[in-house]
Amino acid sequence: MKQDLKSRKGKKLTPDEVSLFFNALDQTQKGYLSKVELRDALRLKGILPDDPRFLTLFKTLEETHYPDGIRPKDIEGHLSGSDHFIRASNHKSLIIPDFTEFCDDLLDIYEKTKLIKHGQVADYIPQLKRVDPRLYGLSVCTIDGQRFQTGDSKVPFCIQSSCKPVNYCLALDEHGEDYLHRFVGHEPSGQSFNELTLNHRGLPHNPMINSGAIMCCSLIRQDLDVADRFDFVLNIWRKLTGGLPVGFNNSVYLSERQTADRNFALGYFMREKGAFPKDTKLIKVLEFYFQCCSIEMSTDAMSVVAGALAGGGVCPLTGESILSPDTVKNCLSLMESCGMYDFSGEFAYSIGLPAKSGVSGVIMIVIPNVMGICLWSPRLDALGNSVRGVEFSRQLVSRFNFHKYDSLVPGQCTKKDPRISKHSGL
Amino acid sequence: MKQDLKSRKGKKLTPDEVSLFFNALDQTQKGYLSKVELRDALRLKGILPDDPRFLTLFKTLEETHYPDGIRPKDIEGHLSGSDHFIRASNHKSLIIPDFTEFCDDLLDIYEKTKLIKHGQVADYIPQLKRVDPRLYGLSVCTIDGQRFQTGDSKVPFCIQSSCKPVNYCLALDEHGEDYLHRFVGHEPSGQSFNELTLNHRGLPHNPMINSGAIMCCSLIRQDLDVADRFDFVLNIWRKLTGGLPVGFNNSVYLSERQTADRNFALGYFMREKGAFPKDTKLIKVLEFYFQCCSIEMSTDAMSVVAGALAGGGVCPLTGESILSPDTVKNCLSLMESCGMYDFSGEFAYSIGLPAKSGVSGVIMIVIPNVMGICLWSPRLDALGNSVRGVEFSRQLVSRFNFHKYDSLVPGQCTKKDPRISKHSGL
Amino acid sequence: MKQDLKSRKGKKLTPDEVSLFFNALDQTQKGYLSKVELRDALRLKGILPDDPRFLTLFKTLEETHYPDGIRPKDIEGHLSGSDHFIRASNHKSLIIPDFTEFCDDLLDIYEKTKLIKHGQVADYIPQLKRVDPRLYGLSVCTIDGQRFQTGDSKVPFCIQSSCKPVNYCLALDEHGEDYLHRFVGHEPSGQSFNELTLNHRGLPHNPMINSGAIMCCSLIRQDLDVADRFDFVLNIWRKLTGGLPVGFNNSVYLSERQTADRNFALGYFMREKGAFPKDTKLIKVLEFYFQCCSIEMSTDAMSVVAGALAGGGVCPLTGESILSPDTVKNCLSLMESCGMYDFSGEFAYSIGLPAKSGVSGVIMIVIPNVMGICLWSPRLDALGNSVRGVEFSRQLVSRFNFHKYDSLVPGQCTKKDPRISKHSGL
Amino acid sequence: MKQDLKSRKGKKLTPDEVSLFFNALDQTQKGYLSKVELRDALRLKGILPDDPRFLTLFKTLEETHYPDGIRPKDIEGHLSGSDHFIRASNHKSLIIPDFTEFCDDLLDIYEKTKLIKHGQVADYIPQLKRVDPRLYGLSVCTIDGQRFQTGDSKVPFCIQSSCKPVNYCLALDEHGEDYLHRFVGHEPSGQSFNELTLNHRGLPHNPMINSGAIMCCSLIRQDLDVADRFDFVLNIWRKLTGGLPVGFNNSVYLSERQTADRNFALGYFMREKGAFPKDTKLIKVLEFYFQCCSIEMSTDAMSVVAGALAGGGVCPLTGESILSPDTVKNCLSLMESCGMYDFSGEFAYSIGLPAKSGVSGVIMIVIPNVMGICLWSPRLDALGNSVRGVEFSRQLVSRFNFHKYDSLVPGQCTKKDPRISKHSGL
Repeated sequence: MKQDLKSRKGKKLTPDEVSLFFNALDQTQKGYLSKVELRDALRLKGILPDDPRFLTLFKTLEETHYPDGIRPKDIEGHLSGSDHFIRASNHKSLIIPDFTEFCDDLLDIYEKTKLIKHGQVADYIPQLKRVDPRLYGLSVCTIDGQRFQTGDSKVPFCIQSSCKPVNYCLALDEHGEDYLHRFVGHEPSGQSFNELTLNHRGLPHNPMINSGAIMCCSLIRQDLDVADRFDFVLNIWRKLTGGLPVGFNNSVYLSERQTADRNFALGYFMREKGAFPKDTKLIKVLEFYFQCCSIEMSTDAMSVVAGALAGGGVCPLTGESILSPDTVKNCLSLMESCGMYDFSGEFAYSIGLPAKSGVSGVIMIVIPNVMGICLWSPRLDALGNSVRGVEFSRQLVSRFNFHKYDSLVPGQCTKKDPRISKHSGL
Repeated sequence: MKQDLKSRKGKKLTPDEVSLFFNALDQTQKGYLSKVELRDALRLKGILPDDPRFLTLFKTLEETHYPDGIRPKDIEGHLSGSDHFIRASNHKSLIIPDFTEFCDDLLDIYEKTKLIKHGQVADYIPQLKRVDPRLYGLSVCTIDGQRFQTGDSKVPFCIQSSCKPVNYCLALDEHGEDYLHRFVGHEPSGQSFNELTLNHRGLPHNPMINSGAIMCCSLIRQDLDVADRFDFVLNIWRKLTGGLPVGFNNSVYLSERQTADRNFALGYFMREKGAFPKDTKLIKVLEFYFQCCSIEMSTDAMSVVAGALAGGGVCPLTGESILSPDTVKNCLSLMESCGMYDFSGEFAYSIGLPAKSGVSGVIMIVIPNVMGICLWSPRLDALGNSVRGVEFSRQLVSRFNFHKYDSLVPGQCTKKDPRISKHSGL
Repeated sequence: MKQDLKSRKGKKLTPDEVSLFFNALDQTQKGYLSKVELRDALRLKGILPDDPRFLTLFKTLEETHYPDGIRPKDIEGHLSGSDHFIRASNHKSLIIPDFTEFCDDLLDIYEKTKLIKHGQVADYIPQLKRVDPRLYGLSVCTIDGQRFQTGDSKVPFCIQSSCKPVNYCLALDEHGEDYLHRFVGHEPSGQSFNELTLNHRGLPHNPMINSGAIMCCSLIRQDLDVADRFDFVLNIWRKLTGGLPVGFNNSVYLSERQTADRNFALGYFMREKGAFPKDTKLIKVLEFYFQCCSIEMSTDAMSVVAGALAGGGVCPLTGESILSPDTVKNCLSLMESCGMYDFSGEFAYSIGLPAKSGVSGVIMIVIPNVMGICLWSPRLDALGNSVRGVEFSRQLVSRFNFHKYDSLVPGQCTKKDPRISKHSGL
Repeated sequence: MKQDLKSRKGKKLTPDEVSLFFNALDQTQKGYLSKVELRDALRLKGILPDDPRFLTLFKTLEETHYPDGIRPKDIEGHLSGSDHFIRASNHKSLIIPDFTEFCDDLLDIYEKTKLIKHGQVADYIPQLKRVDPRLYGLSVCTIDGQRFQTGDSKVPFCIQSSCKPVNYCLALDEHGEDYLHRFVGHEPSGQSFNELTLNHRGLPHNPMINSGAIMCCSLIRQDLDVADRFDFVLNIWRKLTGGLPVGFNNSVYLSERQTADRNFALGYFMREKGAFPKDTKLIKVLEFYFQCCSIEMSTDAMSVVAGALAGGGVCPLTGESILSPDTVKNCLSLMESCGMYDFSGEFAYSIGLPAKSGVSGVIMIVIPNVMGICLWSPRLDALGNSVRGVEFSRQLVSRFNFHKYDSLVPGQCTKKDPRISKHSGL
C-alpha cells in the first residue's frame, strides 16, 4: 500500500470495490451483517471504533436502523476517507495481510507476560507511586493503520522519557542535523542515563538521556513564549496520534519540578560548560522539559505515534506527514542504540529494534516500515524499564522475525514473518 | 534467488535456458561472441574469471579454439555449478538486477574518494609502515555472487582487526550465545578500543575490541593444539572466500608479538580478574590472536567473506553454509554498534550498516541480505579507520538507500535503490 | 613564650623590665629615642602601629610632646597589654628571635618574585577581572604576634576559597569530628576542585573543595536566620584578625551568585544524592557560601588569621582562643593535603606546609607553631593558584627549614632555621 | 644528642662518666650489679643484647666471671662504641628521656590491641596463607638507638610492600629528584593501590603503589647484572638494620612471580605507554621487584630501618649515614600521603604520621626526629592493612602527641609528650 501514499486522495470507491471489501468482512457469506457483526469484523481487520478514517461509517451505523441487516449498498456512501485502506485490503497489500492471526499471537504473549508480578513501581514522586501496579495495556498500530488493543489500553499514563524521541524529532526538523548536533551528540554514553557527564566535546552524549533531552527542549521553538511552546509540542503529539486523546497531568508536573535535583544539576552543569545555545533561559527550559514529561496518553494513542515513526513520520490514521523521513530515520537510529536506559546495548543486541521506555512503565517499540507497539505496565526492573514490557519484547522477537538481522537466510529462519506475502515475489 | 538455496543442486539447464542467458550477454544480438566479448559480458553481469561456479566454462574457453565465435551450444555442456546463477539471471531475480549500472556508481565513488590524500599509515610495526600509502582497492560481492573489483583489489594486506567478526562467529558457533557471553559482553564500551577497562561484570565490553577478541580466541577449539587451531581458523577463512587466496604474513606476526605491550597488559589484567575460561594458556592465546591478525588477503577475497556475512553465513560463490544464521545475526549486531573503533557510534548513526575496520586500512561493510563490500587504503584517520574507506561509506549511503532506516517512506526517498525491482510487488 | 599563655594576664612590668626592653630598642644606646625612632625600632621587633597590644602606647605617643626624647619612664605606664610580648622579648624567647634578619630574607624573596609577570587574572566575574594585576602584598604574623608587611599589604581583596578553612573549623567546632564527617570526607579527591563527583560514600571528598565547602556552610549555625548566620561568621573572622579590618564586597557576592552554575550543579547533585543534613535549604546555603567567599580583607589581616591557625586557634595579637586546638589540627591536615586545588599533592611534597589559595590570588600559608603568611597577587597559573605566591612558597622552603620533614639530621641541613636559638638545648 | 653526630668517634669515656652511667643503672645504689641485673637495667634504658654498640660489653660479660658482682671499673674498658649513648644518657639528652615509662605505655597498647581477633590473612599465595594469624610482634627504635620489643618480635616475615620506601630512596639517591620524577609522580592517586591507571602524564601516581614501585625498581643500578643488583639492595637493608638479620624467602618469590598477573599487566601497560627509562628489560625488572618484596626480617630489624628513616637516613645503632636526608625527607612525604593503600588519606588525617604497610601484615611507622616503630600481625582489614597495626597506631596518637599537628597549643594538649624534657628550654 505504501506506494500509493501520494495519491491518497484517490477516486471514489466503485460499488464492486465496496462489495469485495464487504464480502471479506462477511465471512459466512450470507450477504448482510448486523451492526455488531460489522463492528467485530472491522475490528478483526484492524479497524477500531475510534479510527478517524471510518468515523462517517461508524456514525452512520449508530444513527441508522437496518431492519434487514447491513448490505454493501448501505455503507457505500459513507466510506470517504477509508478508500485507501479498503483498496489495500482488497488487493491484499496491507503490511500485515493476516492481521487476525497476528493478533492472536500478540494476545498470547500478552497473557503470558501478564503473569509476571515482580518489579517496583517508580516511587520518586507520589503521583507515580500511587499507580496500580497490576495495570497492563498493549496497543499496536501498523503503518497501514491496522490496530489492535488489549488490557488497560485506554488508561492514561505519563509519557515521561518517552517524550524524548518526539522532542528530538522536533528540534531536528526545526534546525537540521548539522546545527542540532552542535549541541548534542549521537552516540551511546556507556553511562547511566542521568549521569553527570558530558562527552569529550562537553555535550550531552545523545538526545535519549536526560541531559540531551533537556538540550533538545532548549532548541524547540525558542521564538515562542512558554505557553505557545508547550502548545506547539502538544499539538504535534495530537497530530501524531491521529486525534486520539492527549492530556497533561499537572500534579505530575508540579511534583517533577519539585524533585528534580538531578535535572537541575545537569542543567547548571551544562550551562557552566557553555553547552546551551545562546540566550537559553535555563529554568524555563527545565520547566518545559518537565511539562513534556507530564503529557498523558494511553497505549492506544502512543501506539499510533509509534506507528507514525515506523512509517517515516506519517500518521497511519490520517495519512498526514508530520515529521520528515530523514528526521525519523535519525531518531530511530538513536532509539535503537540509546533508548532503553542502561539496558540499551543489551536491547539492541537481543531485540534489535528501536524503542524508548519511560519510568511510568511505558515502552514504545518501532518496527520500521511495519508497525508501532506501545506497552504500559508500571512495575520496573532495576534499570528502570517495565518488566513485562521487556519480556514482551523478548517473546515478540523470538516468535517473529522482527530483529533487524533476522531472516538473513529466509529458508532457514524458523520464526514467523507476518509480512510474508508481501515478499512473495522475491 | 534466495528461496532456491536448498535446491542448489538443481536439474541441468535446458538449451532454452542457456540461450536465454547467452542472449542477455550478446547485447548486439549477432548470435555469437568472441572469447574476449564473452568474458567482458560475464564481468558486466558480475562474473569474474576466478568465480568457482564458472571454472569449467573459463577453463574450456581457454583450451578451445572457436574459429566462428562462441555460440550457446558451445558452452551448454560446461555450465555445471553455474545453473543457479543463470536461472536467477534469466528470471531477473538476482539481488542487484542491473549490476552494470550499480557498478558505474561504485566506480564513480571510488574515483572521487581516490583523490583523498590525507591520513597516516599505521607505523607501530615496520611491516605496516612500509606499505605504499597510495594503494586503494575496492571489491564487492552480492549474496548472489555478483562481483565487482577495481583498483588494487588483488594486493594482499593483513586483515588485523577485521579478523574479529570471524573469530567471534567461530567462538559463538562452537559454544552458543549463553556460554560465550559469560566471558564477553555485547555492548559498546563508550571507551577506546584498546582501553584497559572491563565492564561492570569484569568482562571485556564486546568481541570487537582487543580484550574481547582475545577472549574469543581463548574459546576457539581449546581441544586442538596450536598448529591445528590456527589451521582450523585459516580453513574457515578459505571457505568463506570461496577458495580465493588467503595467506599468512609471518613478519607481521613476529612484529605484532614483539610490540604487543597493550595486548599483554590486557591479557594479564583479564587473567588477574579471573575473566578467562578455565585452563586458558594466556601466552598461547595471545600468540593465536596475533596469528589471526596476521592473516593476509586481498579486497577481492574479503568482499566474498563480507558477502557471506550479508547472506547469513552462506558463501555466495559456493553456496556452502559456513556459519549459522543466528551467529551471523549476532555478529552483525555487534559490528554495527562496535565495529569502527571510537567512530562506531557516529558510523551507526550516519552510515547505519555493520562494518569492521583494521589498522592496515581495511574496512569490511555488510549490507544485510544484499552484499558485502571490502575497501582497503592504508591511510588512517585519528581514530584508526581508513580515511578513504570512511568517506566511501558516506557517499555510498548518500547515493543508495542502504542505511538501515532509509526508505521509511519510499515515495519520498530520493536515494537510489538498486534492489528496487525485487520489491516491485510491494 | 608559649608556656606562658595561660598566665597572659600577668603582673605589671617592673621598671627594670621596661628598661631592658627599651635598651633593646635603643640600639645606639644613647638613652632616649625620638617618636620616629621608637616606632621604627618597634617595627623591626615586629610591632606594627595597629597592634592592639601596643594601642595605648601608640596613642600616648601621638598625643604627647617629648621635648627631650622618649625615655623608659615615659612609656612605663602605657604598656598594659604588651607585658607578655615584652617579657618574651627580654627573655629572647620569641619564636623568631632575630626578627629583623628574618624579614630581610622575606623582603629579598618578595622582591625576586615581584619580577614575575606571567599568569592570568581570574575573569569569570567582572569584579575579579578588573583588579590591577600588578598588585602584590605580603604579610607575616608569628604566633607571638611579630609582624611584617610589604607591598600592597593593606589593599583589600576577596578571600574566595580561602574562606574554606575557617568555615570548616566553625562547622567542626560546632558539631565535632564524628558528626561533621558524616557529611564530608577528609581525603584528597584525585580530582579537580570543582569536579562533579562525590566519594564512594556519596559525599564531598573534603572541605577544601567547593562541594565540601558548601556542605560545611550547611552545617554552620543552622539555628540562626540568614543575617545572623553571616554575622556569626564575620564576627569570627574579626576575632581571628585581632580587630584588623574585615569587609564585605557586595558586588562580588551578586556576581558570584549570578555566575555560579557549577556550584548550583554541585548543590543540586548533592541534594539529589541525599548528602545534606536534614532540613537544609539549598538555595540559602549556596547564598551563604557565596557571601563567605565575598568577605574582604588585606594580607595584613589574613596573615593574623594564618598566625592564629599556626598557634592552634589563638589570635596572636589578642591572645584570645577562638578555635579549639583539635579543630585547628584537623584543619591543617586538610589544608596540607587538599588546600592548593590540583596542585595540592605537588605542594604537599615539595613545600610541605598547610596552605589555602583562592582565585583572587591569595595564598595563606601556615607554619605550625611558628607563623602565618599571607600572599596576594592576582595573576594565576593554569591551576588557579597565584603565580607569585607559589614561587614565593618555593623560595621560602628552599631558604628556611620550614618543610615538615626538613632538618631530620640538623647538622647536615644547610637551610636556615630562624627558630634556631629556641632549640639550643637540644 | 643529635648535634654530636659528626663527632661520634669521640674521646674515651672518663671513669667519672662511666660511674655516672653505672649509677643510673644501679637503681638500688648498692654499688655493684649481677650480670642479670646489668642486662635488665640496660634493657630498661633501651639497650638490647644484640645492640652492636654494646657488643664488646656483652661479650665480655659472657666470658668473664665476677664473683663480687660487676662494678664500674669492670666495664670501663669495654665500652668503646657506646660512648655516645652513655654521654647522652648521662646528660639526659636522649630523645626519650624516660624510656621505661614510655615502654610501659607501648606495652599497654600492645596488650589491648592483641585482643583483636578479626581480619583475614592474605591468601593469594600459599606462603602467606599458611602464616599463623595469632602472631603479633612490636619493636621500637629511637633515633638514639633506644629499643623496645615485645611479642613475636623475632619472627621473620616477608616485607612485601614495605620494601617500597627503601626502593624509592635508593632510586632517588642514585638519580636525584628531578630525573627520577620524570618517571613517577608524587601525589596520591585517589585510586586503589594496584589500579591499572597512570596519572595525566602517563606515569605511575607515586612510588608507594605497585606501578610506581616497579618503576623505581627499573631505576636502581641498571648498570649491574641481576645478582649484583639484588645484592646491592640487600646490602642496604643490612646497613639500615645495623646488622640485624635480613633474609630472603625464595618460596614467596617463586609464588609471587607465578601469581603476578596484575603486576605483569601494570608492567606491560607502562611499557606500552613508553613510561620506562630507555633499555628497561621489563621481565627482569618485575622479577627484581618480586625479589625485593620477598626479603624477610623481623619487627626488631625493621624497627631499626624505621628509626633510620626517622633520623634522616642514619642508622641509630651504627651511626652510619646510609641515605641522604633530602631523600628521606621526600620519602617520608610520600609515606605520609600514600603509604597505607586506600586508607592513606584517612591515616594522614587521623594518625598524621608517615607509614608503610604490606600484605604480610607489617606496618612501619616513622615519627620523624624521634623513632621508628614496626608492627607485624598477619590479619588484614578490607583495605589490606594489619587490623591490629592500624588500631595500635590510633591508640598511639591518642595517648601521645605524635600527630604532626598535635600540641599546637602545648598547655592545652592533654596528650603525653615523651620528648618533653628536651623542650624544657622553650
